[in-house]
Amino acid sequence: MLKEAFENVKTKKPVVHCITNFVTATDCANTLLSCGASPVMADEPKEARDVTSLSDALEINIGTLQKRRVRAMLKAGKTAKKQGKPIVLDPVGAGASRFREKTAKKLLKKLSPHIVKGNVSEIKALFEGEKDSRGVDAALGERDIKSDTALAEKAAREHDCIVIITGKTDIVTDGKRTYCVYNGHPLMQSVTGMGCRLSALLAAFAAAGEGDALVSALSAVCLMGVCGEKAFERMKDADGSGSFSVYFTDALFGLSGEELEARARFEEKKI
Amino acid sequence: MLKEAFENVKTKKPVVHCITNFVTATDCANTLLSCGASPVMADEPKEARDVTSLSDALEINIGTLQKRRVRAMLKAGKTAKKQGKPIVLDPVGAGASRFREKTAKKLLKKLSPHIVKGNVSEIKALFEGEKDSRGVDAALGERDIKSDTALAEKAAREHDCIVIITGKTDIVTDGKRTYCVYNGHPLMQSVTGMGCRLSALLAAFAAAGEGDALVSALSAVCLMGVCGEKAFERMKDADGSGSFSVYFTDALFGLSGEELEARARFEEKKI
Amino acid sequence: MLKEAFENVKTKKPVVHCITNFVTATDCANTLLSCGASPVMADEPKEARDVTSLSDALEINIGTLQKRRVRAMLKAGKTAKKQGKPIVLDPVGAGASRFREKTAKKLLKKLSPHIVKGNVSEIKALFEGEKDSRGVDAALGERDIKSDTALAEKAAREHDCIVIITGKTDIVTDGKRTYCVYNGHPLMQSVTGMGCRLSALLAAFAAAGEGDALVSALSAVCLMGVCGEKAFERMKDADGSGSFSVYFTDALFGLSGEELEARARFEEKKI
Repeated sequence: MLKEAFENVKTKKPVVHCITNFVTATDCANTLLSCGASPVMADEPKEARDVTSLSDALEINIGTLQKRRVRAMLKAGKTAKKQGKPIVLDPVGAGASRFREKTAKKLLKKLSPHIVKGNVSEIKALFEGEKDSRGVDAALGERDIKSDTALAEKAAREHDCIVIITGKTDIVTDGKRTYCVYNGHPLMQSVTGMGCRLSALLAAFAAAGEGDALVSALSAVCLMGVCGEKAFERMKDADGSGSFSVYFTDALFGLSGEELEARARFEEKKI
Repeated sequence: MLKEAFENVKTKKPVVHCITNFVTATDCANTLLSCGASPVMADEPKEARDVTSLSDALEINIGTLQKRRVRAMLKAGKTAKKQGKPIVLDPVGAGASRFREKTAKKLLKKLSPHIVKGNVSEIKALFEGEKDSRGVDAALGERDIKSDTALAEKAAREHDCIVIITGKTDIVTDGKRTYCVYNGHPLMQSVTGMGCRLSALLAAFAAAGEGDALVSALSAVCLMGVCGEKAFERMKDADGSGSFSVYFTDALFGLSGEELEARARFEEKKI
Repeated sequence: MLKEAFENVKTKKPVVHCITNFVTATDCANTLLSCGASPVMADEPKEARDVTSLSDALEINIGTLQKRRVRAMLKAGKTAKKQGKPIVLDPVGAGASRFREKTAKKLLKKLSPHIVKGNVSEIKALFEGEKDSRGVDAALGERDIKSDTALAEKAAREHDCIVIITGKTDIVTDGKRTYCVYNGHPLMQSVTGMGCRLSALLAAFAAAGEGDALVSALSAVCLMGVCGEKAFERMKDADGSGSFSVYFTDALFGLSGEELEARARFEEKKI
């Protein structure tokens, strides 16, 4: 089923309107292109409606948030909602400032995103107002998967969306079904923007998906992890986080639907 | 003749003021540096005049357009015009929103750029108001070279500038002479910002050029294509679009004027 | 002593609030991550205080300066000052416009940064109001180390900070002691943002440092140079500035404290 979800992206080549941060925008654009999707990265309120209208999905990422960019997010989001296009919200560093937390909550409330994805700090800040962010890329300590799963499921049910918590184990749930994903590699934390890339992919997969939205999201999450593993396997000699990042994009570019299906490691959890 | 154009860039090391988008700015800066040119990427209206004054050319790129950035473009453009410095306009995604189309047209009218470069959708949106953009990096379907050439030549004559339409075959014309360039590789569409890099190079080549402006522009277009081919030739094993992008910059850095001359594939078309 | 400074960064994993330009932000983020530090790149005035409060150091870089970003710099700087957190100022292209020069001087005066780092044009523009910038990445001609050292020492004494002038030989001084650093490779000038990366590292080293602040700064300067050398040593065949940049990040990621200590080439100058 992951195979089909990935191949749909390659075939349909969805256009994703990304309103995102300037730190990882290049990597997000290349991530989409490497899978056959197309990015349009327009963050001016004056053109938000037009750009969303010609796109197949909207991805909203609050890293390097600005007042102007928030206006664009709200306009684009309203358009996507009206046109029934999938919206992905990435509340980057939601606990890092009152402004981010307030904005993330406003976006959640006003746009009813189809997918919300973050690390556990971000998801807690967004849905429970808890603050413990230390750097948007900061590695997280030992996690309690059980409590994280409960948090994600509750949020998903209350907001009628798919909630994804990323970490050593990724949690993907719509509040009715929950998947745990075991793919990935620790080196992904040494490269900026891996979370942002996933959000861009989630939007592309949602746009290209047919039928089961949760499986589309699961496929994107597995894809990231599998490519992290493939990138690591290629490392040799003096390679470090620089080469790893290049190999990651290479892996995205070259991976087949069959290989994704074969390498994905996940299980459905009883709710 | 391409050899000399390229070597002039390496020798004169022109400074290019780029007012550009945040998605491909890093790649554009590295593209200029890899050829010996220097980027200054200043997009604040308050310093636009000063920065253009110390630069040798101005490159204006409307990806991730903002109202503030447009003011900087107009101020910088006015300065460049007064000082007789070359101006390159890249109407990225001109058909993607009314705001972009209007802005691109305004820049064209007010700044009389020496060179306008885009894919066929962008050039049509700018010069004919036609809308069919689907993503700024979207691959284009089969093209009618004849009609595209006619479009470019007409626009070049009417606006007294060099018009370049990029695609599988690139068209370079000043309305009196027209070149078709056959260099390049399809993988260039899987990396963001290849068009933006060309615009930055066009500005550097225009600044360093002696005499024939059309040949300078032609040289920059061939350079991109040749480096795309060289990057592809280096690919092996698990390499994909990530490595391709790195190899592309390597190729720009290492290419000699002789090799550019030898590998360039173009022909002059009868008008 | 360099070994300890580097290992402190790896162990303490400081969070660095970077208010920086959009051209090199990705590379700066990856530079911090490759050493174990964490970037937070927030440039909205509304969240400047909050983000600095949860960070361990503040890095201010005036490339792609904007009025809005300047407000964020001032707010963040005031917070860092009050909380006793290290501030690094990178006056990128300070001589390129009156706006940059004025802003850099204002930041220097209002924030009393602990470290100021630039090439000789930038340092002259900031401390002596001299204008000779030609492109922020422009290579500099032959330098008079003696006069540059005198300039740096005078500035450091007058402003009670560490002043670093980068170039073929780097000068690191607090006005009482001065180090000359001989590490580095000319290819570092062919990649954008090497100076910006150093500023980010200086902030991380300052945050993690114990005791001798000048030695912490010296360690970061040597680290950049050593990684430049290591990156060059790996180059082969068709490699150019693209691969060099990847190898540079790899070197940062893989370098041990012992190797930094062993490869650092510097000497203390008599004042």
